Amino acid sequence: MIISVILAHPDKYSFNHAISATVVKTLNQNGHKVNFHDLYEEGFDPVPQAEEIPKHSPLPAELEKHCSEISAANGIIVIHPNWWGQPPAILKGWVDRVIRPGVAYEFLEGDKGEGTPIGLLKAESALVFNTSNTETERENSIFGDPLEKTWRNCIFGLCGVNNFYRKMFNIIVTSSEEHRTLWLEEVRQTVSGYFPKE
Amino acid sequence: MIISVILAHPDKYSFNHAISATVVKTLNQNGHKVNFHDLYEEGFDPVPQAEEIPKHSPLPAELEKHCSEISAANGIIVIHPNWWGQPPAILKGWVDRVIRPGVAYEFLEGDKGEGTPIGLLKAESALVFNTSNTETERENSIFGDPLEKTWRNCIFGLCGVNNFYRKMFNIIVTSSEEHRTLWLEEVRQTVSGYFPKE
Repeated sequence: MIISVILAHPDKYSFNHAISATVVKTLNQNGHKVNFHDLYEEGFDPVPQAEEIPKHSPLPAELEKHCSEISAANGIIVIHPNWWGQPPAILKGWVDRVIRPGVAYEFLEGDKGEGTPIGLLKAESALVFNTSNTETERENSIFGDPLEKTWRNCIFGLCGVNNFYRKMFNIIVTSSEEHRTLWLEEVRQTVSGYFPKE
Repeated sequence: MIISVILAHPDKYSFNHAISATVVKTLNQNGHKVNFHDLYEEGFDPVPQAEEIPKHSPLPAELEKHCSEISAANGIIVIHPNWWGQPPAILKGWVDRVIRPGVAYEFLEGDKGEGTPIGLLKAESALVFNTSNTETERENSIFGDPLEKTWRNCIFGLCGVNNFYRKMFNIIVTSSEEHRTLWLEEVRQTVSGYFPKE
């Protein structure tokens, strides 16, 4: 299978980077083709300009590449920290620019954009791995865990990817080496469960 | 009073721009000092680099200005479209960079970042005006309106601004001129209600 892996964290020594390394290694070992993007590393520009937004606009080559990869993906894995109940801006902008009409969703003929679009992504499954320094109880009761709704319903559900799994690892800032090792083993098992050996 | 107004929309002919013009005009007429930022117009860079994240890091001058303004604000008004249940990336990055420790919130001594921070913003009220092309019923039942939790709880609540009001205007793409005029009058009344003549 072809799997897109998208990472957004500014620190290359972060646990997010460790998760993404485990994800990519597991996918490779299982015989999948991996399209990996470390958005910080590649300096992805997250700000769409007005002229890029209409459906048939010409796109810069690097954005075309992101779009064609996500269209071709049989699976998608996203890794990012929980910043204000949302992804970091660089990943939010990847969504704004890449998950676009004609690529990831489409409105029915005659619909000017006010209706219910049809999902176009062919990926069977999407996984999201998050890190956080907020206790689970506080995340759920005070903040309502907006990342869950955002990724599951607003983004992947809308684009037709309904086999969705998300895991929030916390508390990162006080976690032990031993705990992180167990978490990476959990990542390995999850990825292998969704994308087993071909 | 000093009011910070933050706008994020790529198209200067957008209804978001019309809202922000009404907001700024109303505040001026009511005798307030307005710090207005059209993030697209000023080319705000929404991507924090790793070295900027620790609390006492030196910051670029334009970021220092944003931080000192938000610290001084007696009120905050944010205007943006609903893109994937979140703000556009340029505004997400404004939050990531400006709503920072030591400026907008602080952890108690001995807390490494895993606990409950104290809000530092002195603003009495925060208003958020959103635009959307999604029907209210679908927004609430399918998507769960993540913007409400994000702005009310994750951002302003955490930073100590508990007098919060948010309005989502929809459906923009099929709205009439007459309807937009009524909406702008509603914006004027709301702003005057929260920030009346001095």
